[in-house]
Amino acid sequence: MELKLALIGFGVVGRGFTDILIRKKEFLQRKYNLMVKYVGICDMKYGSIVNHSGLDPHKALEAVRAGNSLEKSFDGVKGLSPVEFIDASGADVVVEATWTNLDTGEPAITHIKKALSTGRHVITTNKGPIALAYRELSNLAKAKNVKLLFSGTVMSGTPSIRTLVRGLAGCYVSEIAGILNGTTNYILTKMEEGLSFNEALRDAQQKGYAEADPTMDVDALDPSAKIVILANIAFESDLKPKDVIREGIRNVTLENIKDALRRGKRVKLIARAWSDGKSVKVKVTPEEVDINSFFGQVKGTVNAVMFRTDSLGDVYLIGRGAGGEEAGQAILADLIELIL
Amino acid sequence: MELKLALIGFGVVGRGFTDILIRKKEFLQRKYNLMVKYVGICDMKYGSIVNHSGLDPHKALEAVRAGNSLEKSFDGVKGLSPVEFIDASGADVVVEATWTNLDTGEPAITHIKKALSTGRHVITTNKGPIALAYRELSNLAKAKNVKLLFSGTVMSGTPSIRTLVRGLAGCYVSEIAGILNGTTNYILTKMEEGLSFNEALRDAQQKGYAEADPTMDVDALDPSAKIVILANIAFESDLKPKDVIREGIRNVTLENIKDALRRGKRVKLIARAWSDGKSVKVKVTPEEVDINSFFGQVKGTVNAVMFRTDSLGDVYLIGRGAGGEEAGQAILADLIELIL
Repeated sequence: MELKLALIGFGVVGRGFTDILIRKKEFLQRKYNLMVKYVGICDMKYGSIVNHSGLDPHKALEAVRAGNSLEKSFDGVKGLSPVEFIDASGADVVVEATWTNLDTGEPAITHIKKALSTGRHVITTNKGPIALAYRELSNLAKAKNVKLLFSGTVMSGTPSIRTLVRGLAGCYVSEIAGILNGTTNYILTKMEEGLSFNEALRDAQQKGYAEADPTMDVDALDPSAKIVILANIAFESDLKPKDVIREGIRNVTLENIKDALRRGKRVKLIARAWSDGKSVKVKVTPEEVDINSFFGQVKGTVNAVMFRTDSLGDVYLIGRGAGGEEAGQAILADLIELIL
Repeated sequence: MELKLALIGFGVVGRGFTDILIRKKEFLQRKYNLMVKYVGICDMKYGSIVNHSGLDPHKALEAVRAGNSLEKSFDGVKGLSPVEFIDASGADVVVEATWTNLDTGEPAITHIKKALSTGRHVITTNKGPIALAYRELSNLAKAKNVKLLFSGTVMSGTPSIRTLVRGLAGCYVSEIAGILNGTTNYILTKMEEGLSFNEALRDAQQKGYAEADPTMDVDALDPSAKIVILANIAFESDLKPKDVIREGIRNVTLENIKDALRRGKRVKLIARAWSDGKSVKVKVTPEEVDINSFFGQVKGTVNAVMFRTDSLGDVYLIGRGAGGEEAGQAILADLIELIL
């Protein structure tokens, strides 16, 4: 089956996805009967191009990697705004991979609404719109009889959301807990080795795990958005990131960590959501966990999530939680979901 | 959506599933728009009944729990053989939950073939037919445009197969490793506490984790079937249980376990499958794993699996691997899959 795809945002995620598609073209056709035709790419920096005959994704990657505009590299309809682009693309599925904004969710929310309301499936790795407007967007998708898939928003390609939605379909989930931010887990792991918070943060920045402004990670905004996304699916709630009781890791001292280790514990930034039967609570705070536990063994940038269920007890999923290829894989799994 | 369901095998698994369906009737209707109508139940011991108007599952449970025949408890078509039963049932989906036979896969293979070839979806928790005849049965399902789902065959309700098929869709998997048998893991855990193999086995038997004849578990026949099932999905191979290099835990001594612990290791029965590019290898053998690892923290009857992938590195799934309710949940997740 051929899917016509329009990609908005051609940064690390959009390129990571495109790389995988090129590499696995034959495999995807043979195993899933999936063929993907790029009918448009739209990027803030590299311009906007629509061509219903299809755009060579390899050529698009080469263009932007050489710093060239897409508009100069391809024939087709050029210069459209993202909203015009979606309309003109003729795509079956819009992949939204623009930057994350956890205050407003924009411009991604506008893009997603436009795509859904014009009858297109949407795949996004962008936490902003899903953390801030999941209920509204998923209702719109249902009303339009299209799918809104967003695997990559929590733990990237490690399939936390698909496990919750499909793997545990039919379960009652009473609690979710997770190590959902690799950057802070890396910093805490380094602090166990004796680095101060500031030294560990600098190390994470040098390795590219932390941004120059590390607020999203160390102040726990990122894992707060992620636990809200999981909670709203599991508990059918409509929580927002502002509802999260949130404490980052800035106040975790070397002494806290050493003291915990002496007692057989590790300090981890744990995101937690639970239902007390009446309402749903969400918090992200440093917690001590036993070294001899699954969470206690989650080191470096690895992520983990635990779903507490009625029929299965505690189910753990552990894996990488970030990266361009990992996010690209999340988009690919969503794309396959559309045709399975 | 209403699904007409025929159940073959009304033992621990069939009853576990039925219990869940009764308990979650309203939830399933509200959340998934799923309504299930039992149109037939067929059991070696309690007889065979078909009634197109529907059978009250609660009444069926009460009957067999009181030791009464289904045929005496319900009106309808009685006394059919399983194959006749499938034909007469008019079911959309046949749930096959008879006993596991790892030598021939029968009678389940015959039941599944009959159901698929008459255009019915099949859900089974029975390892025998999937380990022995997966390729043939899945080809038959494809040809008939129906689904063959078998979540419950590996790790029971903990969704190892769905993670592989859907969660990791699009990934290349190069290796699978798992602790896929809870009974042997329980015995090994007890041996760490100082019990001999025979004492630990007796304890497992008393707790109902091991059978009177423990061969399936301690000689690794059960995890061999499971790793074959996972390998054939991941590697598109057609391996059989006899292809597994297999060594159980009978020869693991207390001294082996103590010696490993002194070196920071635990002895685990590890099922492993990997592709060397040309062929697929499968083995189940005792291995030493680091205490400080995810597998090293898998204690008692808990199961775990690791999928080594190209885009995501190692992905771990950990949870319970057996039990009537757990298997019932696997069937339920498969049933929901049919309508999602």
